[in-house]
Amino acid sequence: MSEHITLAHGNGGRHMRELIDGLFARHLANPQLDVQVDAAHITPPPGDLFITTDGFTVKPLEFPGGNIGALAVHGTVNDLSVSGATPLYLTVNAFIEEGLPYATLERLVAALAQAAREANVRVVAGDTKVVPRGEGSGLYLATTGVGVRRPGLRLGLDQIKAGDVLLVSGPVGDHGTAVMLAREQFGLRGDLQSDAACVHPLTAALLDLPGLRFMRDPTRGGLATVAHEIVRASGLGVRLQEAMIPVRDPVRAVCEMLGYDPYYLACEGRVVAVVDAMAADQALARWHALAAGSEAARIGTVENSHRHVVLETPLGGERLLEELEDDPLPRIC
Amino acid sequence: MSEHITLAHGNGGRHMRELIDGLFARHLANPQLDVQVDAAHITPPPGDLFITTDGFTVKPLEFPGGNIGALAVHGTVNDLSVSGATPLYLTVNAFIEEGLPYATLERLVAALAQAAREANVRVVAGDTKVVPRGEGSGLYLATTGVGVRRPGLRLGLDQIKAGDVLLVSGPVGDHGTAVMLAREQFGLRGDLQSDAACVHPLTAALLDLPGLRFMRDPTRGGLATVAHEIVRASGLGVRLQEAMIPVRDPVRAVCEMLGYDPYYLACEGRVVAVVDAMAADQALARWHALAAGSEAARIGTVENSHRHVVLETPLGGERLLEELEDDPLPRIC
Repeated sequence: MSEHITLAHGNGGRHMRELIDGLFARHLANPQLDVQVDAAHITPPPGDLFITTDGFTVKPLEFPGGNIGALAVHGTVNDLSVSGATPLYLTVNAFIEEGLPYATLERLVAALAQAAREANVRVVAGDTKVVPRGEGSGLYLATTGVGVRRPGLRLGLDQIKAGDVLLVSGPVGDHGTAVMLAREQFGLRGDLQSDAACVHPLTAALLDLPGLRFMRDPTRGGLATVAHEIVRASGLGVRLQEAMIPVRDPVRAVCEMLGYDPYYLACEGRVVAVVDAMAADQALARWHALAAGSEAARIGTVENSHRHVVLETPLGGERLLEELEDDPLPRIC
Repeated sequence: MSEHITLAHGNGGRHMRELIDGLFARHLANPQLDVQVDAAHITPPPGDLFITTDGFTVKPLEFPGGNIGALAVHGTVNDLSVSGATPLYLTVNAFIEEGLPYATLERLVAALAQAAREANVRVVAGDTKVVPRGEGSGLYLATTGVGVRRPGLRLGLDQIKAGDVLLVSGPVGDHGTAVMLAREQFGLRGDLQSDAACVHPLTAALLDLPGLRFMRDPTRGGLATVAHEIVRASGLGVRLQEAMIPVRDPVRAVCEMLGYDPYYLACEGRVVAVVDAMAADQALARWHALAAGSEAARIGTVENSHRHVVLETPLGGERLLEELEDDPLPRIC
């Protein structure tokens, strides 16, 4: 096996077969992955079927707390989780750039496999393409996930009512900041870890709670973008309390230095939940009982009075969080 | 809306929303596509569920008889079809290069939508990423398909027996040759059309035929690679009759000029079927009754005597078709 990926690894012949058998299939092996078939047979348990898909172009490919392989599992598994589904199956597409060291690819695929095992999902189908040197960025991944949800669960933007409460499961902006620091592009360094993780334990903890309206993971565009999605879909307003939103010191420091707003920075392991005000304490208690939710907080409310995202400052002032126009940190997922 | 795709179209904010609402959702609209949700609810009819995924990096993006948008539907829908499933749902990932003209993207997405309608599949989820100028090739796509198969259908490489007959639904190598001619890289031009198409009518025509063993679409690596997959999985040999394999004149001419072998060139709308010898005539008759199968032919047999792919020449000679080592035509899908 050569030390770098070559165009021949993508051509449908012996080299591609060796790449698939010797690397992808070896790490991703499970009873439902058969690299000989055109389509995989899946056997989900009874329930409502959900499907979602996501692409990953994060740069650099590896960063503190994660890498593109693990992220490609977390991103898709989390979209199923916040929809109230239990993630079950995953398909993986890899666009590999010619010249990528074989050892790097192996490390990333091993991380993908490990993340899939931890999230209890099976990779059942995959495809690899090799693109010429310069026409990629090492590795792009696309994953599609299938999960099952309990029938009758009512969850969605259309369930949100004025008076509902917003919760977040942990500090915001860690992932975006960690990836940015890994690039060292502003001469900044730090040991902040990405929060990238499977959020399913957090979402599963709330599923049987009466008064749960909506959940979403604040990825691209961050918490502020989730708030805007709520405003747009509900026709209501969102009021956030700045003092209540957990933000880690290094994230705050980077934002102050560079003029960023942490509420627009991506998380990859957090959940924003909207719950009936009567259920907020119980939801928060359930999250606090989990390791991943120990820093969960009540951060705001849904209001009838305006169609904006308003941030209430600690001194009692207000500022509008506008819809994101230009991304301060592209390529974070 | 700007005339070219910018990095802001991938950042999770207003520009991305406009791209998704104004272009993708507009063309792909169907009752199950809701761009507001993290995961889509799908409701397949009873049967065995199948899933498959494929990535697309064809160059150029548009070629006679197709483009990357339509191809991304055909490739995935065909993998379900040759597995014996009825394709139902599709997810789409787009990796768009900064600078791609908006009009080009719109044309490709419109073609994707049209191909999905023709194949009777619904696009239920999607994701877009924008990569910086130079780190892509205009557009890469990844699609995942879900379909349903009649329970109890026995179909697969493990069903193949010595004495079985190989059929092909039409001429081989059109797609690979058409894409190559579109590149004009050898100073060659021609009006050959790609065969890219949904093969479901062809596969559906054989599904209730007793003696149907296995179907596959000869894409990357072509007919010879499918024959090698049969040899590897069955431990048997494949004997092909050169005089029986349909190859169009322009494909033959290009192969003679460039020293290529048409049996390794990709098709994107053909099916290779392995059937019991007793069922071969009936299978062929069913294909001949379809427009897409009018040039179908019996091309070879599965043999017990060797573990090779042997091509019998018109003059009675034999040559081995080796496993593909180096692709003469990369980036054809």
